[in-house]
Amino acid sequence: MANKGLLIVVSGPSGTGKGTVCDLWRKEYPDIQYSVSATTRKPREGEQDGINYYFHTRESFEKMIEAGELLEWAEVYGNYYGTPLKKIQEKLEAGQDVLLEIDTQGAMNVKSKVPEGVFIYLVPPSMAELERRIRGRGTETEESLARRLGAAAAEIEIGKRYDYVVVNDTVEQAMEAFEVIRKAERCAVNRNMELLDSMK
Amino acid sequence: MANKGLLIVVSGPSGTGKGTVCDLWRKEYPDIQYSVSATTRKPREGEQDGINYYFHTRESFEKMIEAGELLEWAEVYGNYYGTPLKKIQEKLEAGQDVLLEIDTQGAMNVKSKVPEGVFIYLVPPSMAELERRIRGRGTETEESLARRLGAAAAEIEIGKRYDYVVVNDTVEQAMEAFEVIRKAERCAVNRNMELLDSMK
Repeated sequence: MANKGLLIVVSGPSGTGKGTVCDLWRKEYPDIQYSVSATTRKPREGEQDGINYYFHTRESFEKMIEAGELLEWAEVYGNYYGTPLKKIQEKLEAGQDVLLEIDTQGAMNVKSKVPEGVFIYLVPPSMAELERRIRGRGTETEESLARRLGAAAAEIEIGKRYDYVVVNDTVEQAMEAFEVIRKAERCAVNRNMELLDSMK
Repeated sequence: MANKGLLIVVSGPSGTGKGTVCDLWRKEYPDIQYSVSATTRKPREGEQDGINYYFHTRESFEKMIEAGELLEWAEVYGNYYGTPLKKIQEKLEAGQDVLLEIDTQGAMNVKSKVPEGVFIYLVPPSMAELERRIRGRGTETEESLARRLGAAAAEIEIGKRYDYVVVNDTVEQAMEAFEVIRKAERCAVNRNMELLDSMK
């Protein structure tokens, strides 16, 4: 365990900007490994198998579930999404940090299996600001906007089960907070028991 | 609690360099408040009352103990040492971070009273390196060196009760680790419950 990498799990209400912050973080710190999710949803234009997702049929996805090959999985709006376990384990064992950007349901499943993971909940500066940002994209109807904002407020309570809360004031500040958390967690006492024992 | 400062407690085996790292940290980040300890030991040359220590008689120190005015106190080699509570509380309430550089006994007393404090244990890269550093100062007899090294090894186990372990490879690296921990702790979920509740 001494030099194992960190499994870092990032979630947050839809529209908070998780993807943008995580993308910048990986760009600034390319040592961070990204976990590519598996899904049964159809590829969108430009999405590549093995880069954006591992695209599966329902049949092959269900085989992975049965074989215990997924760290977590969920069915969302009729499509499966899941996190392949093996590649993550290999990277962690090699001392690499692995980033998972997944929803709260998946994150809590991961937490039950990997409690030593680092769980970060990204929130908007306020719900009013979240609304302003989603409106600014111009991609939502009033109805879908209301649904997203309602879902965001409803899932805030789950944020209390994460280890850290980061406010996405700006992408740069949020990214720096992620990095500071990663560095601090390497000093967490429960990750340094062998070091202490080696000094006695 | 929302904007309270952090009470940061730093300990480590004698000779590890706590004082040097903390001094550099405060120099680089002057917003960090230092707690001046009270003691009954005599001032050394150049030490000033209220700067290095609050110097007390045994009688006045014991009055502070009885009045509950100390966050922690201990008697070491016949002298009292303690941490005056009131000024720390005022600074924390004002949102300022307060640094306590105290021994493990005092730190564990503080932890029982202020579990939300941030407890950092500074260790040398190895016991061999600690010996080399203490020898390098040329201030110890073989006997006192052996005593210090024995005490250092004996207290390593207590380090497991801290929140973080920082290795003092270089003063600069250790100082940066302290600062990273301070920043990350501001994002700790238990310090951000009110923020989350405000978003629901």
